[in-house]
Amino acid sequence: MSSDDDVVTKNLSSHSLKPALDAVATSINSRFEKLLTIPADPRARLVEAMRHAAMDGGKRMRPLLTLAACDLFGVDKEQALRVGIAIECVHVYSLIHDDLPCMDNDDQRRGKPTVHIAYDEATAVLAGDALQALAYEVLADEATHQDAAIRADLCLALARASGPDGMAGGQMLDLAAEHETFDLPLTARLQQLKTGALISFAVEAGAIMGRASDVESTRLRGYAHDLGLAFQIADDLLDIEGDETLAGKALGKDQDAGKSTFVSLMGVERARAQADLLINQAIDHLNGFGAEADLLRAIARFAIERDR
Amino acid sequence: MSSDDDVVTKNLSSHSLKPALDAVATSINSRFEKLLTIPADPRARLVEAMRHAAMDGGKRMRPLLTLAACDLFGVDKEQALRVGIAIECVHVYSLIHDDLPCMDNDDQRRGKPTVHIAYDEATAVLAGDALQALAYEVLADEATHQDAAIRADLCLALARASGPDGMAGGQMLDLAAEHETFDLPLTARLQQLKTGALISFAVEAGAIMGRASDVESTRLRGYAHDLGLAFQIADDLLDIEGDETLAGKALGKDQDAGKSTFVSLMGVERARAQADLLINQAIDHLNGFGAEADLLRAIARFAIERDR
Repeated sequence: MSSDDDVVTKNLSSHSLKPALDAVATSINSRFEKLLTIPADPRARLVEAMRHAAMDGGKRMRPLLTLAACDLFGVDKEQALRVGIAIECVHVYSLIHDDLPCMDNDDQRRGKPTVHIAYDEATAVLAGDALQALAYEVLADEATHQDAAIRADLCLALARASGPDGMAGGQMLDLAAEHETFDLPLTARLQQLKTGALISFAVEAGAIMGRASDVESTRLRGYAHDLGLAFQIADDLLDIEGDETLAGKALGKDQDAGKSTFVSLMGVERARAQADLLINQAIDHLNGFGAEADLLRAIARFAIERDR
Repeated sequence: MSSDDDVVTKNLSSHSLKPALDAVATSINSRFEKLLTIPADPRARLVEAMRHAAMDGGKRMRPLLTLAACDLFGVDKEQALRVGIAIECVHVYSLIHDDLPCMDNDDQRRGKPTVHIAYDEATAVLAGDALQALAYEVLADEATHQDAAIRADLCLALARASGPDGMAGGQMLDLAAEHETFDLPLTARLQQLKTGALISFAVEAGAIMGRASDVESTRLRGYAHDLGLAFQIADDLLDIEGDETLAGKALGKDQDAGKSTFVSLMGVERARAQADLLINQAIDHLNGFGAEADLLRAIARFAIERDR
C-alpha cells in the first residue's frame, strides 16, 4: 500500500468525514495521475482533456461511499480505490457530456472552464467516451479483484447503472423535463436514474467486493436508495439557495428553465423536511451494522448538510 | 437455439460469404429487437434513437468475424452472437458520435438520416453513451459465458480496444489529421487505432471464448492486424471511387478536407497493391488452421473486394 492509502485507512477508521473525504480525494487524484499518462502523439490532447475533467475536482463522494461500504467487509483498500476510480470515470464522463452545448451548455464546472470550453466540443465528446471505456478497463483488470466473478459482477452492475435503465435513461428524462411538466413520481424516477443509480452502484460495489449476505445487500440497497434521493433534494435546494462561487458552477438553471424539481413541486420547507426524513430512513437501514457503519452514517448526514 | 441461429450455423459451415453475412445480419437484428425494448416513459425517445442506429444497418462484418473466429474452437453460436451484439453496440455508438456536427457532421448514414438529424444532438450523445454501456451489460452477463474469467477478459479487451489506446485514441488522431499533415506511419497508427482495434477485438473475442493456445492467438492477432489495415485502405479507395447511393453516405470527404489517407499518401495503384499484399499476409497467418478457417479467409478477400 502506498502512503496515501495509509492516510485513507487511518481517516476511515476515525469515522470523521472531512479528513476521510480529503484523503480519498488525494488517493483518487494520485491514481488518475498514474492512469492518465499523456501519449507522445496527437492523442495527448485527448488525455489532457480527460485529466482536466477528472483531476482535482469534486468531492469524490462516490468513491468515499465505496470505500466506506467496502470497509464494512474488510475489503482491501487498494481494490476499493480502484472501483472508486472506475465510478469517478463514469461520473466525470457524464458531467463532460452533460455540459456540452447540446445538453446543459455549461461553461464552468468545479470553478474551471468545462472541457468543451477549455478544449473543443469534439474533444469533449471523445474524452467522455474514453473515460467510460476506462471505467471498465479498470474494473475488469485482475488488480481490482483476484476473483473474476467479482470483476464481471462489477462490470455488469456498473453497466446497468449507467445505461438506458440507469444514468443515461435519467439524462433522457431530464431532457424531456424541459418540454413536459413532470409530476412528483416522474421527477423522483428521473433523479433515481440520473444520479441515484450511480450512487447505488458505489454502495453496491462494496457489497459485491465484500461478498455481502442477501440481508446485508438489502440493507445497503435501502441505504443507497434513500441517500440518493436525499442527495438530489439537497442539490435542488443548493441550486436555488447556494453560492455560485462555492459551487463552482452556474446555479438557478433548473428554475430558470422552468424544470420540475423536488423544490418546485414541494416547496423549500417540505423538500427540506423530506430530505431529513430520507436521511433518517437511510441511517435506519444501517441498524443491523455496528460502529463499522459510522462512516456511511456520517456521509448520509453530510449529503443534506453541505448546503446549509 | 432459435431458428435464425440454425441458418447461421448452416451458412457458416458452407463457408460462403454472402449467405453467412445475411444470416448474421438477421440474427443481430432480432437480438437488438429483443434487447432494445421501448420503455413506457419519455426514455422511449432514447431507446428509439438507439434502435434507429443499431438495427437494419451495416454489413455486420465485425460480428461475422467473431462468429468465424469462435467457429474455429467450437464455441456456442448463441454466446458468440452475444459478443457480436456487444461489438456492434460499440461500433454503432462510435458512428453516432462520429456523425455529430462537432465531429464529421454527417447527415446520412447507411442511407438513413443520422441520429442527430432524425432526433437531435443531445439524444444522439446519450444514445451513443447508452450503447457503450449496453456493450458491457451484454458481455458481463452470465448468458455470454458460464466462465466469469472469460466474461471479465472480454470486458477488459473491449475496454482496451475502445479507450485512449484504441478507438477513441484513433478518433482523436483523426481530428488532429484535419490540422496537421500525417505521414504514412502516423496514418497507419491512426487507422490501426480508429478501426483496427475493434476489428482486432472481434477476432480476439473468438480466441478468448475458445481458450485458444498462445500460438493460435498469435496467428489470429496477425490475421486481424493485416485485415484491419487492408479494410481501411479499401475504405479509402471506396471514399474516392465509390458510389454514394450504394455506400449510403457522403463520399470524398477526406479528400475534400485535405486529410492524409493511404490513397493520398500512396496513390491509388500502390494503395490497391498494398491492400492485396496485406490480405495475402492475413490469409498466410491462418496457415496453421485447416478448412475450419475458410470463412475467415473469405472475409479477408471480401474486405478488399467490396469496392470493385
